[in-house]
Amino acid sequence: MKVITTIEQLKLIIKKEKSEGKTIGLVPTMGYLHEGHLTLASNARLENDVVVMSIFVNPTQFGPNEDFESYPRDLERDKKLAESAGVDIIFAPDIEEMYPTDGGIKIRAGRQAEILCGASRPGHFDGVLQVVSKLFHIVEPTRAYFGQKDAQQVAIIQTLVRDYNFPLEIRTVPIVREEDGLAKSSRNVYLTEVERKEAPAIYEALLIAKEQFEANQNSEVAIDSATKHIEKYTSGKIDYLQILAYPDLKPVTDKTKQYLIAAAVYIGKTRLIDNIIFSLKGEA
Amino acid sequence: MKVITTIEQLKLIIKKEKSEGKTIGLVPTMGYLHEGHLTLASNARLENDVVVMSIFVNPTQFGPNEDFESYPRDLERDKKLAESAGVDIIFAPDIEEMYPTDGGIKIRAGRQAEILCGASRPGHFDGVLQVVSKLFHIVEPTRAYFGQKDAQQVAIIQTLVRDYNFPLEIRTVPIVREEDGLAKSSRNVYLTEVERKEAPAIYEALLIAKEQFEANQNSEVAIDSATKHIEKYTSGKIDYLQILAYPDLKPVTDKTKQYLIAAAVYIGKTRLIDNIIFSLKGEA
Repeated sequence: MKVITTIEQLKLIIKKEKSEGKTIGLVPTMGYLHEGHLTLASNARLENDVVVMSIFVNPTQFGPNEDFESYPRDLERDKKLAESAGVDIIFAPDIEEMYPTDGGIKIRAGRQAEILCGASRPGHFDGVLQVVSKLFHIVEPTRAYFGQKDAQQVAIIQTLVRDYNFPLEIRTVPIVREEDGLAKSSRNVYLTEVERKEAPAIYEALLIAKEQFEANQNSEVAIDSATKHIEKYTSGKIDYLQILAYPDLKPVTDKTKQYLIAAAVYIGKTRLIDNIIFSLKGEA
Repeated sequence: MKVITTIEQLKLIIKKEKSEGKTIGLVPTMGYLHEGHLTLASNARLENDVVVMSIFVNPTQFGPNEDFESYPRDLERDKKLAESAGVDIIFAPDIEEMYPTDGGIKIRAGRQAEILCGASRPGHFDGVLQVVSKLFHIVEPTRAYFGQKDAQQVAIIQTLVRDYNFPLEIRTVPIVREEDGLAKSSRNVYLTEVERKEAPAIYEALLIAKEQFEANQNSEVAIDSATKHIEKYTSGKIDYLQILAYPDLKPVTDKTKQYLIAAAVYIGKTRLIDNIIFSLKGEA
């Protein structure tokens, strides 16, 4: 496995691989890898000749009061985990390498970023689209891998790729869960023992909402039942709990084919997110 | 020469050519070709294995009160001219093919778009960056060709390519002029006979400003002389007439290496633009 820190060096390697007809899988990460990231890498490994994992804590997607400085970083640990998951190249540039100039051109994520997680993180998805566009142009991947856990992020990136004709395929990998259903997250370690026992109620609530919605297609009733479940079994505070059309993130209509039930809940001080994507025929 | 109207079809051809290691030159146009466009195509022909010319009157770069509907179009004539200039593939999609969906993601051109042509055409360069990004992703050119006539456009596109790491080279081709110095433009056909005789005074004024600036590096004096020339020899109304640093389009400083003198003048109802890029050693 190679660790590359400059764009120029990476592009030379990619150019050579592409000239030999090799396919490239890109796994964009901010490092501090957990099982979710490694599942993305394993999927990329199965489907591509060359697997590139980017590790870059992107400053432009953090708000002024967010945790950019304290975001956990451990490149040495990440290297071992990435290698074990079959990564060929880690691309770990510094900020100066990624943002040496700023001519003032910005990508605005728009409507899809104004809801769910975007409502409390203005500018976050603009920064995501900026760094993802740059990585797509630098790596020129055949396929890029994102976790369904960040469903809104995936939806917005899919919109970018579709509306701007990026020549690559977005592959979404299902949420990896603990045995009791809690979605895996680096933030789960912050939970107290009591909170950890409450946390699976989020996924249970999503399943209740899904079941109810499948039965009667009434979002209000479904969300109400799910809300009551979270209120009954946790001490948490719901940030949002919504059913939307996926991937356009618009309100559900008669023509909606895929549905997203998404939740963000503060369990103590820890904000956890989870979601289910489904169609009425029952495919996840 | 092939004429292609769908993205899917074009991508199939490009994929085949690229798999054989061929280089691709892209000449983006809005059609109604004149000698300026053909010079771009000839340059692309010299430097690439395959030359793609896009012909698409892009609605998103026209303001609500601009001439999108009446913009001149003549694909049959364009085909003959493009073929004569060595174009291999014309890509002529319709609006539905280019903009079938709109998820709300926008590119904002920012600071560089707030001056010169951008000042009187809000949103124009956002639309240019949108269509250019799409074309770059669809065609995946090795090199893309733009005329220096739209100097601000070239500067902004170069900023896009630099700051977002687009994997291609921007090539700029000098302005092609009529014998009397008037810059060639599709819009010249709008001029009356009298207006047509006045129009060369714009380029004359730019040359006066350049000469004066070279002599004393005083922008104000240079612009004043140029303004007087246009006022004396035309019935036109100056939209802007400025000296700026190129390519960042910031005010001139002691450290400026390249200068742009740019003008937009309404001759009757027709808005004409022209410019000169130069350094103090006198290279164009």
